[in-house]
Amino acid sequence: MRAVILGADGYLGWPTALRFSARGWDVAVVDNGVRRRLDQELGTASLVPIASFSERIAGWAALSGHRLRAYEGDLTDGAFVERLVQEVRPEVVVHFAEQRSAPYSMIDRAHAVYTQVNNVVGTLNLIYALAEHAPEAHLIKLGSMGEYGTPNIPIEEGFLEVTHRGRRDRLPFPKLPGSFYHCSKVHDSTNLLFACQNFGLRCTDINQGIVYGVETEETAADPRLATRFDYDAVFGTVLHRLCVQAVIGQPMTLYGGGGQIRGFLDLRDTVRCIELAALHPPAPGEYRVFNQFTEEFRLRDLAVWIQRLRPGAVMQAVPDPRTEALDHFYQAAHTQLESLGLIPHPLTDATLERLFHIVERNRTRIRPETLTPHIQWRQTRSYWSNLASAPPRDVAAWGGSVRSPGWSSPSEEPSLC
Amino acid sequence: MRAVILGADGYLGWPTALRFSARGWDVAVVDNGVRRRLDQELGTASLVPIASFSERIAGWAALSGHRLRAYEGDLTDGAFVERLVQEVRPEVVVHFAEQRSAPYSMIDRAHAVYTQVNNVVGTLNLIYALAEHAPEAHLIKLGSMGEYGTPNIPIEEGFLEVTHRGRRDRLPFPKLPGSFYHCSKVHDSTNLLFACQNFGLRCTDINQGIVYGVETEETAADPRLATRFDYDAVFGTVLHRLCVQAVIGQPMTLYGGGGQIRGFLDLRDTVRCIELAALHPPAPGEYRVFNQFTEEFRLRDLAVWIQRLRPGAVMQAVPDPRTEALDHFYQAAHTQLESLGLIPHPLTDATLERLFHIVERNRTRIRPETLTPHIQWRQTRSYWSNLASAPPRDVAAWGGSVRSPGWSSPSEEPSLC
Repeated sequence: MRAVILGADGYLGWPTALRFSARGWDVAVVDNGVRRRLDQELGTASLVPIASFSERIAGWAALSGHRLRAYEGDLTDGAFVERLVQEVRPEVVVHFAEQRSAPYSMIDRAHAVYTQVNNVVGTLNLIYALAEHAPEAHLIKLGSMGEYGTPNIPIEEGFLEVTHRGRRDRLPFPKLPGSFYHCSKVHDSTNLLFACQNFGLRCTDINQGIVYGVETEETAADPRLATRFDYDAVFGTVLHRLCVQAVIGQPMTLYGGGGQIRGFLDLRDTVRCIELAALHPPAPGEYRVFNQFTEEFRLRDLAVWIQRLRPGAVMQAVPDPRTEALDHFYQAAHTQLESLGLIPHPLTDATLERLFHIVERNRTRIRPETLTPHIQWRQTRSYWSNLASAPPRDVAAWGGSVRSPGWSSPSEEPSLC
Repeated sequence: MRAVILGADGYLGWPTALRFSARGWDVAVVDNGVRRRLDQELGTASLVPIASFSERIAGWAALSGHRLRAYEGDLTDGAFVERLVQEVRPEVVVHFAEQRSAPYSMIDRAHAVYTQVNNVVGTLNLIYALAEHAPEAHLIKLGSMGEYGTPNIPIEEGFLEVTHRGRRDRLPFPKLPGSFYHCSKVHDSTNLLFACQNFGLRCTDINQGIVYGVETEETAADPRLATRFDYDAVFGTVLHRLCVQAVIGQPMTLYGGGGQIRGFLDLRDTVRCIELAALHPPAPGEYRVFNQFTEEFRLRDLAVWIQRLRPGAVMQAVPDPRTEALDHFYQAAHTQLESLGLIPHPLTDATLERLFHIVERNRTRIRPETLTPHIQWRQTRSYWSNLASAPPRDVAAWGGSVRSPGWSSPSEEPSLC
């Protein structure tokens, strides 16, 4: 079976590529390297040292005997995506290749535009390439539980049975995304539902919760195979950040007091879920949605748990930089993956101790300044907008190049005035 | 009161600009001229001759004594939008400046990408410019009734009261858009709801039905003030097309037999609705949705009506180039505008006769070949993809320029492999 993993140099893409390869799939891996460039922009770095993309691939070949076919390219380049699909002829496409940080999308206008164009155009290009050259392929697309926001009704898996004025329909579940990043994921979902109906594509849209951990069977086998551990305020996830703060003796910061409830899952379950989705494809034309998380936690309760294990740790409520509900109802379905055979790894003392151990082992690599949330949701410009090292240099390109495809040449353009 | 009309050179933008100006508003008009370039690409033209943007503006000044301040620029150019808002300091912004044809968006990948980037990035840039420089301004944004599709429940105005498992919430009405153009409008709606909540902006999102007619009090006053009459298969609306076919003795083509039901309104009501929305702004932070149409018609019934008035006209069912339901429930609320004082102009024999008259008067300008629907929804490439005159020349730009805003310079990029 041929699979292509898009965004295979990232936190989740890399372990997923290894899992598919370990299981005997013929795996192509694709990345544009942007995640490492974002570290340069933000002054961040993975806590765990990670090898370069080529070193990782060579390491896996040496250790496993399995070759990953590597492609360097950008999904916003439609010609690249088309060549890729023509060459690989994938049966499964796993699409992690999106800008995945909500705070990053809220830095300023340029970062919001970058996030939405990168994510939406990449997926649109993929839709067309699959429709033309691999219409039977199963697209597994990573979305976010954050697409739903926190409605005052239980969240279902992608669709809602609605009764209204005596009539019934099964309709897309209403979404309340809380950042321009989350909006971009909703846009993707809208495009994918239409693409499945229109082109007969088959798609599993995965609304994933917050992932923690870095060790799968494959990534733990050798330092060259390690995946990223992000803990900073922009790309880090909350549990990683709290663990780092606890270990280095900084207060565990809880935005707005930490009343938020979110879905969580272990990295090992992420990888297993993607594998299960791939092994059980939807029918042609079917767009299905899996809510991919295993447990719900109130963020404050996670901090309390950490405090129990590391009694010196203290909690600190800080103003919430985001626009979100701090005390809200939350209940979300997540039964489909378990019905396909997922046996979850719940969060345990042992898991947290293992995270502490990883943090301790890499303690000298921690950059405490990156824990501070500089990005304020309600402001139109943030810390990074003002850094000379992070100029939005490409912005002019949006104005100049956003032209109708049929626009032949400047000389043929009728003058406007 | 200061208003800015975005897309003021277009079918609806121009009559709206005139109406606001006639009522004493201080009006700035903005366009990038793309609609005239799309005519070049497609080989189409307005049935009614239209003056150039500058001639129109000069004509209005001569006739009315009112000056329209004109800006030539593209909303995808963030710096332009920011300068515009800083300079005009609008109290009302009416945003018509989007690619508005569903068939155009379905020509091929490049046209789908163009449509979504143009529409989504333009609106994102506007959101940021308003949040920074005119947070009190009222944004009136044109959406489409097509965002809803044809659900099997009655359509409400933007939101739905949902009861689910014993809990209640008022949530965004689920959307079933039927083209990448309609998807782009849903994306805008998603972004705007978030923007109002996050930045405290105030927005009226107008889900408009199918508009017919070209004559308002102002546009009918002088040939220099005429607005577009589109009847072709790409930018024409169905009623205009049927009228043209009936007048020139071609069969009135009904896609899939014409069982589709849609909401319609007279151009005079469009202009009045926008005016009413502007006169009754929402509260700061409020995102409200108006369904802007006055009557529902089954397309086949419109053809029967035309046939009654022009007994020689014949109907012809043709294969539906679109992906849509042909026999469906349809019932949509549209009470808010009438509660603000709209007195609709219902479709009458006289209105149709007036349309026939306009067609007759411009009969020599009709290009019958443009009535043929060349764009097949389920195909990834259409007629225009293959025309040498319409190369998607800008596509490479998407790949090359879609870069993280923080990407400093090529020499600083870490190599990927």
